Amino acid sequence: MFKTFCTRRPLLSYRRLFSTSLQCKKTERQAILVKTPKGTRDYDDKEMAIRQDLFKSITNVFQRHGAVTIDTPVFELTEILSGKYGEESKLIYNLADQGGEHCSLRYDLTVPFARYLAMQGGKEAQMKRYQIAKVYRRDQPIMTKGRLREFVQCDFDIAGQYDPMIPDAEVLKIVSDALDTVKVPFYIKLNHRQLLDGLFQVCGVPQDQVRSISAAIDKLDKMPWEDVKKEMVKERGLSEQIADRIGKYVLQQDSNILDILEKDEALMKNEDARKGIADIRLLLDYLDIFQVKDRIRIDLSLARGLDYYTGIIYEAIQTEVEGLGSIAAGGRYDNLVGMFAGTNKRGQPKTIPCVGVSIGVERLFSLLMARQNIDKIKSNATQVYVISVGDGLLRERMQLVRELWDAGIKASFMFKNKPKLEKQWNVCEKEQIPFAVIIGKDELDNGQVRIKDMRTKSNQGGGITVSRKEMIDVLKDKLN
Amino acid sequence: MFKTFCTRRPLLSYRRLFSTSLQCKKTERQAILVKTPKGTRDYDDKEMAIRQDLFKSITNVFQRHGAVTIDTPVFELTEILSGKYGEESKLIYNLADQGGEHCSLRYDLTVPFARYLAMQGGKEAQMKRYQIAKVYRRDQPIMTKGRLREFVQCDFDIAGQYDPMIPDAEVLKIVSDALDTVKVPFYIKLNHRQLLDGLFQVCGVPQDQVRSISAAIDKLDKMPWEDVKKEMVKERGLSEQIADRIGKYVLQQDSNILDILEKDEALMKNEDARKGIADIRLLLDYLDIFQVKDRIRIDLSLARGLDYYTGIIYEAIQTEVEGLGSIAAGGRYDNLVGMFAGTNKRGQPKTIPCVGVSIGVERLFSLLMARQNIDKIKSNATQVYVISVGDGLLRERMQLVRELWDAGIKASFMFKNKPKLEKQWNVCEKEQIPFAVIIGKDELDNGQVRIKDMRTKSNQGGGITVSRKEMIDVLKDKLN
Repeated sequence: MFKTFCTRRPLLSYRRLFSTSLQCKKTERQAILVKTPKGTRDYDDKEMAIRQDLFKSITNVFQRHGAVTIDTPVFELTEILSGKYGEESKLIYNLADQGGEHCSLRYDLTVPFARYLAMQGGKEAQMKRYQIAKVYRRDQPIMTKGRLREFVQCDFDIAGQYDPMIPDAEVLKIVSDALDTVKVPFYIKLNHRQLLDGLFQVCGVPQDQVRSISAAIDKLDKMPWEDVKKEMVKERGLSEQIADRIGKYVLQQDSNILDILEKDEALMKNEDARKGIADIRLLLDYLDIFQVKDRIRIDLSLARGLDYYTGIIYEAIQTEVEGLGSIAAGGRYDNLVGMFAGTNKRGQPKTIPCVGVSIGVERLFSLLMARQNIDKIKSNATQVYVISVGDGLLRERMQLVRELWDAGIKASFMFKNKPKLEKQWNVCEKEQIPFAVIIGKDELDNGQVRIKDMRTKSNQGGGITVSRKEMIDVLKDKLN
Repeated sequence: MFKTFCTRRPLLSYRRLFSTSLQCKKTERQAILVKTPKGTRDYDDKEMAIRQDLFKSITNVFQRHGAVTIDTPVFELTEILSGKYGEESKLIYNLADQGGEHCSLRYDLTVPFARYLAMQGGKEAQMKRYQIAKVYRRDQPIMTKGRLREFVQCDFDIAGQYDPMIPDAEVLKIVSDALDTVKVPFYIKLNHRQLLDGLFQVCGVPQDQVRSISAAIDKLDKMPWEDVKKEMVKERGLSEQIADRIGKYVLQQDSNILDILEKDEALMKNEDARKGIADIRLLLDYLDIFQVKDRIRIDLSLARGLDYYTGIIYEAIQTEVEGLGSIAAGGRYDNLVGMFAGTNKRGQPKTIPCVGVSIGVERLFSLLMARQNIDKIKSNATQVYVISVGDGLLRERMQLVRELWDAGIKASFMFKNKPKLEKQWNVCEKEQIPFAVIIGKDELDNGQVRIKDMRTKSNQGGGITVSRKEMIDVLKDKLN
């Protein structure tokens, strides 16, 4: 889905989160500045453990709903991307002309998905797909606020011709399930492109001002009505009377707003508005069955992405951290694939209706990192550390670790001929390895090993002594 | 690890594998050519299912050995990449100068890893890391042979100061485990940079010709000795006498080659050669413990990547498909990190020794695809399809599917108010969904559902009838 998080990136300042990229050093030996490019950063092992857990949790939700995944190139023909992002097009990264096609880094995952669907030529006209991948925006980065030029988008979309509002309801169920999975409190703002269109018509907004007025209205979550009105009237040249009429609608926060609108005769005479309200009514009916209805707040001031959206639009707002804003966003876009798909035999544009959502995984990552104690994050999966007491016993440790590996147990040992016992304990503790297999001269002589649960805070002795033959079975038992 | 597969990409021509990118169409409505950029392609859901399985299997092996993963940007400062790839530097993709730093798409994952380690400033001086990510080479693509400009590399490296040959042995164990996981038959060619250096010195190769002669020797797996010799003498200006001396060494295929070399007095007087042979002896001792020794073939004609490698070098050769060539490659590179890390307090370069391997996952993918029947690949995880008999029962189906989702069961239903029974069966079959939950008027009236195992090839009747309350438990039982 189109991601419009770019204007409101995480405000959470998490000290460690952005430290890597700020580290740049000029070496004495050479003039190379060793850093990552502006607006990009590395993720270390602990950060990656959290990120991969997050991606996995969300992927599980997508798969529970029957989604498949596809992969598209990191760059696309420049022509494919151009004209799809309005003013934001200036933020597209182009590749240098080194003799060949003009290419640009993908700006989101939606246009590539539409291009993919169009190239399938109808074969895949119905598809539930997710994609978790990096996108690129040559925006002014604010590293301390997590606003990056390279970031991951996490999209779920349903393409295809179906009965009204059923896939739309499932997408909202998925947003809800995904955010519940990471235990983020949220609600979902919902509006409808056609309802907005109708409302603007009823208020008397000239057709050529609709986009500009929408953009102003969309700021109502960040500025008071008076300022928005001033912008519409002073900067965008709307008459004050029309602005006031719009205000009367978009400022309504009543939970029974649909009932109120349905009693509004002027509005109900407008076909677009009527269609929008009917869609929302049907959607709410389905969302009630899916037990998501309580999360929905109809909000006529939500106007995002009008360029692409053709039906319902929504934004999930998290309420855990103030100022972090929306955490997922999307809507229905029925005409985008048609821009690539050409015409059918009768000369009509081939359209593939789509509805989807982009989950703000970078913001979720900020939230999760803020909740964590970084030292407590286990970044490797090692289950057993093979330790020698006294003499180094390198070959014996290698033999043991080989047996563990071959039995599918995640195991490690110290790459030293004669490692100090203390240093081996330290690795166990630092890497939070739950079990140690210990050998010394006694164990070796008796064909035994000692198995110790490192999570018990006892001293370095202890553990149980078992025969070499039993080792794998005992460990497997403990690990299950 | 540095990937040098680029010169010998998969020769396997798998019809379907490359079909997507060959599909380009000019639409009638507009002039945009809807295609992916030259040398890139989409991967559809079935291909992605195979790719993700492959990545997951290999990741499991890496994690079994205690590795963590990190993430680095897709592009790096051009300066970071320049001078690292020799002649191949011309294949680097540059980003356009849009006002800012000069950046290029990463060419491999090794230079970014070295840059990352250098930036950690010693903090992470010891690390086992894997990274599975896309890299970019502006090479002449051969789509039908799977030689692409965007492809995935899969690297495992061990960085840090350790006792000799222990991490080297573990890397070779990992290569072996990873290839065994995907059941590819293979052997590993092994050589040592210092042994080669010593050998060239003993034969009398002038220092400034070492690189060029190495490159010629490396072609011995593709051309006969006579042609290689001709190239060395005619094109690279080596004396015929020296060439013959080299031939005497590199053409030896004896399994006791180390014994033979150790009896060669001229060679054993050379310190480099002696050091190389001693390293290999110690490595083989460790590999014997790891039960990998039988996979190793010492091959003095293996000379790859001499720019970077400082110790052992290796290539795993698969023997399943002729002409596909190597399937993993790597070695020890002790000086690369030092190029970025600057000097310590005493003015000495800060080096972090590294050893690693790049597994040719794109080639493994070709092998796996060639083994598969594409129609038999299940690309979604759906376990249960909710079906209505007779009337549409949309709301009842939505209610059921919601219960399944909330119980963690992967479920789907048809987005139609009144779907035809036949079409619902077809989805089950096409998507290989193992179970159907069926409701009709009878079931509805009795508070029951019918559960049918779709893998049994019986007719459309059958299945067991259970109460609504039991449904989740019965299904969970069947799914375990």
